[in-house]
Amino acid sequence: MTCANRPTILTGDRTTGPLHLGHYIGSLRARVQLQHEARQFLLLADTQALTDNVGRHRKVTENVIEVALDYLAVGIDPEKSTILIQSQVPELAELSQYLLNLVTVARLERNPTIKEEIRLRGFERDIPAGFLTYPVSQAADITAFRATHVPVGDDQLPMIEQTNELVRRFNAAVGQPVLVECEAVLSHVPRLPGIDGRAKMSKSLGNAITLGASADEIASAVNAMYTDPNHLRVNDPGQVEGNVVFAFLDAFEPDTQRVDELKAHYRRGGLGDSVVKRMLNERLQSLIEPIRARRHELAADRGAVVDILRRGTMRAREVAAQTLLDVKGALGLSYF
Amino acid sequence: MTCANRPTILTGDRTTGPLHLGHYIGSLRARVQLQHEARQFLLLADTQALTDNVGRHRKVTENVIEVALDYLAVGIDPEKSTILIQSQVPELAELSQYLLNLVTVARLERNPTIKEEIRLRGFERDIPAGFLTYPVSQAADITAFRATHVPVGDDQLPMIEQTNELVRRFNAAVGQPVLVECEAVLSHVPRLPGIDGRAKMSKSLGNAITLGASADEIASAVNAMYTDPNHLRVNDPGQVEGNVVFAFLDAFEPDTQRVDELKAHYRRGGLGDSVVKRMLNERLQSLIEPIRARRHELAADRGAVVDILRRGTMRAREVAAQTLLDVKGALGLSYF
Repeated sequence: MTCANRPTILTGDRTTGPLHLGHYIGSLRARVQLQHEARQFLLLADTQALTDNVGRHRKVTENVIEVALDYLAVGIDPEKSTILIQSQVPELAELSQYLLNLVTVARLERNPTIKEEIRLRGFERDIPAGFLTYPVSQAADITAFRATHVPVGDDQLPMIEQTNELVRRFNAAVGQPVLVECEAVLSHVPRLPGIDGRAKMSKSLGNAITLGASADEIASAVNAMYTDPNHLRVNDPGQVEGNVVFAFLDAFEPDTQRVDELKAHYRRGGLGDSVVKRMLNERLQSLIEPIRARRHELAADRGAVVDILRRGTMRAREVAAQTLLDVKGALGLSYF
Repeated sequence: MTCANRPTILTGDRTTGPLHLGHYIGSLRARVQLQHEARQFLLLADTQALTDNVGRHRKVTENVIEVALDYLAVGIDPEKSTILIQSQVPELAELSQYLLNLVTVARLERNPTIKEEIRLRGFERDIPAGFLTYPVSQAADITAFRATHVPVGDDQLPMIEQTNELVRRFNAAVGQPVLVECEAVLSHVPRLPGIDGRAKMSKSLGNAITLGASADEIASAVNAMYTDPNHLRVNDPGQVEGNVVFAFLDAFEPDTQRVDELKAHYRRGGLGDSVVKRMLNERLQSLIEPIRARRHELAADRGAVVDILRRGTMRAREVAAQTLLDVKGALGLSYF
């Protein structure tokens, strides 16, 4: 792959809490790989997190550094990836403002991702305007960095569609190809369940193992994991589907043959939960231990982390500022 | 009035066309007075004009200089008033973005001013998101400059209400009085009708007399003015109500006693339209002539006007940047 057609990736996280193993499997691991192949922008999305966290802004801003620590601890290299804080790139708000004119309220209300998020948050008719319009901010984030590829879950596909619709509308309105369309990169990794068996691992649901978890926290999380409630005696046949321990082994145990054997043994009976859990615990301890150590080390020099974020944000601003200059130029908004 | 409690005024115009006599009577004349008593920010609202002018951005940006010429020609002193271009103060977009989280979509949809504007523009369900949310941008404009007074027509009162609601919500969310509430200043000048008798004078309706109108244009506009269609012969009694010529005399003839006498004469019959029109024509010619001359002179040195706008915009940015700093500080968004 030559430099010229090197893809540009935009991805990131809302800064509402430290990251967990679900993030590790779902995105972080891939990002560490991708930073060698692509130009990668990692967005610490504090502004977006604020759209549904009015009054909880301290939580949002305090977690910016936590998420940054997670990025660095898992192996994101700030020389290879650009880590930026969304609120510190004012060009994103400006671009967003121009894109807002290109989409109708009705279209935003039909966005399936937004519909679902509105349902989840119980907003009903009381949707904050900033929340309804966040797909537009997201489009601004993507287009500001001229991202060609955006890693998403399939529930996020409508956001990419919305972005490309805005790109086409903008380019048509100004009669020149100023903004770049992007492509969704779908993850094929199944979503990691919470330790309680719920579909989504989430810090706020209390069913997550964070990347900074202590050895004890990991051990007790594994111990508390939901397995097969009908697998009462060791010799009973057990169920692997919906069994969180096996979902985790699928995700974290590289020796897939070993996992297959364990599954077969569990199914026919004779394999106790405690044995499988012990194995998973070892796996997770050895995965998290170096991450935790690195995280601890980084956290001790907060100033250095802030400095990394400052440099990344400045680098990102240069790119976004150029896009905005093009956008404003195309609209005739360059008077001086 | 001491300096400390000198009011701060925010006002301005969408830049969709040169200004006309309706603007002169409705706002410009008062602004020329107010600049001696208050700190006055005059917003060339190009960004706001773009919210319902997608694809017509050239019209919007080209008229920035036209409106600025009108301001200067009528006597706005750039040393006393701060004239700024909205799109060149990115802090406004940023502030807007934070305020957007504090209002629901339903609340915006209930805003009577917006409802009426939506009806006028025939948007129905196809309301651009940027248009629905423009009261929030307007609140950002007002609060960014810490305006204490905003001159409005009574149809705009809901916008001021909306602004103050956002101010209170923001201050409550951060637990400190960061933003300042403002007061509406209602104009008591009746709205100037179009020369065709329609309630609103508007360049796009073709019923306006612009501030740069030539002597011929003024004369033929006065000549074409709607009077009393039943006043066929000079000796017929004529109607003053709804008669555009008298509405203009009320607005522009300082000798009110003279106007009263003319009205009485016209009512009882014996006063021809041509006589009153001749008188109005003289009045308007002597009003517009020096404005046109000054406008012409200013337009010859476009660079100097751009320079005035650059200086005003820079001065405005300093104020807006300080407000934004306070806003972001209160939200905890100051990492560096």
